Amino acid sequence: MATVDRWLLPDGIEEVLPPEAARIEIARRQVLDLFQRWGYEFVVTPHIEYLESLLTGAGQDLDLRTFKVTDPLSGRQMGFRADITPQVARIDAHTLRREGPSRLCYAGSVLHAQPRALTTSRSPIQLGAELYGDASPASDVEVISLLVDTLELAEVPDVHMDLGHVGIYRGLVRAAELSGEAEQQLFDALQRKAMDEIDALTEALPDSLRRMLRALAELCGSREVLDLALACLVDAPDDVHAALDELVAIADALELRYPELPLYFDLGELRGYHYHTGVVFAAFVPSVGQAIAQGGRYDDIGADFGRARPATGFSTDLKTLVTLGRMPLGEEPAGIWAPDSHDVYLWQAVRRLRADGERVVQALPGQELSEAVQAHCDRQLVLHEGRWQVLALD
Amino acid sequence: MATVDRWLLPDGIEEVLPPEAARIEIARRQVLDLFQRWGYEFVVTPHIEYLESLLTGAGQDLDLRTFKVTDPLSGRQMGFRADITPQVARIDAHTLRREGPSRLCYAGSVLHAQPRALTTSRSPIQLGAELYGDASPASDVEVISLLVDTLELAEVPDVHMDLGHVGIYRGLVRAAELSGEAEQQLFDALQRKAMDEIDALTEALPDSLRRMLRALAELCGSREVLDLALACLVDAPDDVHAALDELVAIADALELRYPELPLYFDLGELRGYHYHTGVVFAAFVPSVGQAIAQGGRYDDIGADFGRARPATGFSTDLKTLVTLGRMPLGEEPAGIWAPDSHDVYLWQAVRRLRADGERVVQALPGQELSEAVQAHCDRQLVLHEGRWQVLALD
Repeated sequence: MATVDRWLLPDGIEEVLPPEAARIEIARRQVLDLFQRWGYEFVVTPHIEYLESLLTGAGQDLDLRTFKVTDPLSGRQMGFRADITPQVARIDAHTLRREGPSRLCYAGSVLHAQPRALTTSRSPIQLGAELYGDASPASDVEVISLLVDTLELAEVPDVHMDLGHVGIYRGLVRAAELSGEAEQQLFDALQRKAMDEIDALTEALPDSLRRMLRALAELCGSREVLDLALACLVDAPDDVHAALDELVAIADALELRYPELPLYFDLGELRGYHYHTGVVFAAFVPSVGQAIAQGGRYDDIGADFGRARPATGFSTDLKTLVTLGRMPLGEEPAGIWAPDSHDVYLWQAVRRLRADGERVVQALPGQELSEAVQAHCDRQLVLHEGRWQVLALD
Repeated sequence: MATVDRWLLPDGIEEVLPPEAARIEIARRQVLDLFQRWGYEFVVTPHIEYLESLLTGAGQDLDLRTFKVTDPLSGRQMGFRADITPQVARIDAHTLRREGPSRLCYAGSVLHAQPRALTTSRSPIQLGAELYGDASPASDVEVISLLVDTLELAEVPDVHMDLGHVGIYRGLVRAAELSGEAEQQLFDALQRKAMDEIDALTEALPDSLRRMLRALAELCGSREVLDLALACLVDAPDDVHAALDELVAIADALELRYPELPLYFDLGELRGYHYHTGVVFAAFVPSVGQAIAQGGRYDDIGADFGRARPATGFSTDLKTLVTLGRMPLGEEPAGIWAPDSHDVYLWQAVRRLRADGERVVQALPGQELSEAVQAHCDRQLVLHEGRWQVLALD
């Protein structure tokens, strides 16, 4: 391999250099501090686990995205985390085993063997918050509100939120008693809003069910969609009505909290259908084709770890927040330039300044004072009247 | 796989739960802030790279410790970083390409396919600082000082520092013109201080060289070792003298800066011999068998990336610092319990409190006030005379 190749990074794998890395770090702290102020407790999950743990239940969709290796110690298959959510669910279900609700949050790199889309990073820094133990819409409202506040903190402009509920489609297909294969085909057609295919696939169903399934593809838009849905789905089974009521309750609460936030509804939106069990949501901005943050309810995720718990939460990518946001991320660092000297009094002066929070860069042998500016210094330490003093750069 | 197995983590792979995870996060910030005050700029390196980049030059010793996978996009071999130092060297040599010295720091998980020792973590959180572009002992003194300050910040008690210099042994074996195999045998014998083997392996050498190589195994102890070395190695080649002079200069500077810090010297200490080119150092505490932090000079590491640069630095493990240290890591979080209510005035009161930095946990449906304490709250929001007010918990 030629030298010239050795520093190439694989596609979709990024490094972050100064000063961008400092901005990422500041944003990370601010978001984690926000989560903490909402009562979410920080956890650190492993980068690698046995594959069964990573891909169990919630994680089956992740199979293709997960890098796999054999553990030389146990001979078992391991995977590098491609999503932190299932890990946090394991911690809630198995390790913490708390009685009441528990609120957990995390921040860390994940790796994707396959990118989600052609131009997508394979190494996002996933940030998220999860609320376990409460099945009511109050929890969904809380995590969606925390997501809105996170995007507001990051000063991401022009956010709108898309809301859906997988329980609506799930209730209808349950009533339709479709075969697994037919359900999958209908699901695909609905995602593409391919009306002809939907018509063909639902041909054999009773008229009322057929109309309702077809309506899902068209029930998207702003708040009036929910009123339309109440009318269109009047003949739907009870669980469909319950799902719709949940969605309305969540929308009402969000409108009260964030009257300025544009809400969109898409009842055919089945993001994470195999994973989610209730409301699903995603944040979008006009300049980006994909969701910049997403989440939803995924009850029972803990069942595979020995304890089913209601769960809802969201995740986003720290690098995306910093790229799209206008967060004030601190000024160019100031600093004090110290000369190259072994004088122990200089050392003591430098230590005191650093203890006071100052940034002090000490010159190395041969460095000129002119290099101080390059090192982002605006002052210097000078021996003046027998004492080391901080003066302006000449 | 039974449910009971699914939550087991692989040996040496850990998760960090509350409240320990919050302590880790606070320590991480404090150490990175310290690095920043010393003028070190933060970089974020990828968790995965092409294997050639990871294992080039500095990284050859890492081969066995590195998890490997094939990149499905390029078909090339990739590795999960087992050490961040070679990645930062790549950034200095190739990406930043600065003229003057550059100071870089990092913090992030690494993964080891094989643990360093039986009981060692395979997923440490590596923290480190690297100084490029200056070959003088001043740089070594700076990074060792920063390590000492880091351990002091973490309040790790009873630290002592071991110092060595691979240039001394390297100069002697060069003069001895040993074959590669003989040199490797001698190296092994020296590491084990196996005097009989050293004698046998150096039998054919001139008396003076033989005596000096043998002396290395015995030249360990406190400061007087350096004076003894100056005497024992008086007939050594010039490069050995230069190495010894460097070690003396570094020891002198450290004694001036940290008169209380116990320094030990071991001239047969060849930690990272195939990697290091000058001074090597390691921090120890009495209760732990292995070094808790280590580093040294590794000039020319950048050569494989197209640009040789003098380099020196250290690394340590954040979890070790938190476990061994007595760092004040913040009090048990206080908080305000908000009742379960959709009242928009309550929401506004909660928002204001959080904006002021307060931690506010809102009750979920069915939660009793008695659960406030479990959620680490010491106050509550109460509707009092028409206003939401913060009161003590009853």
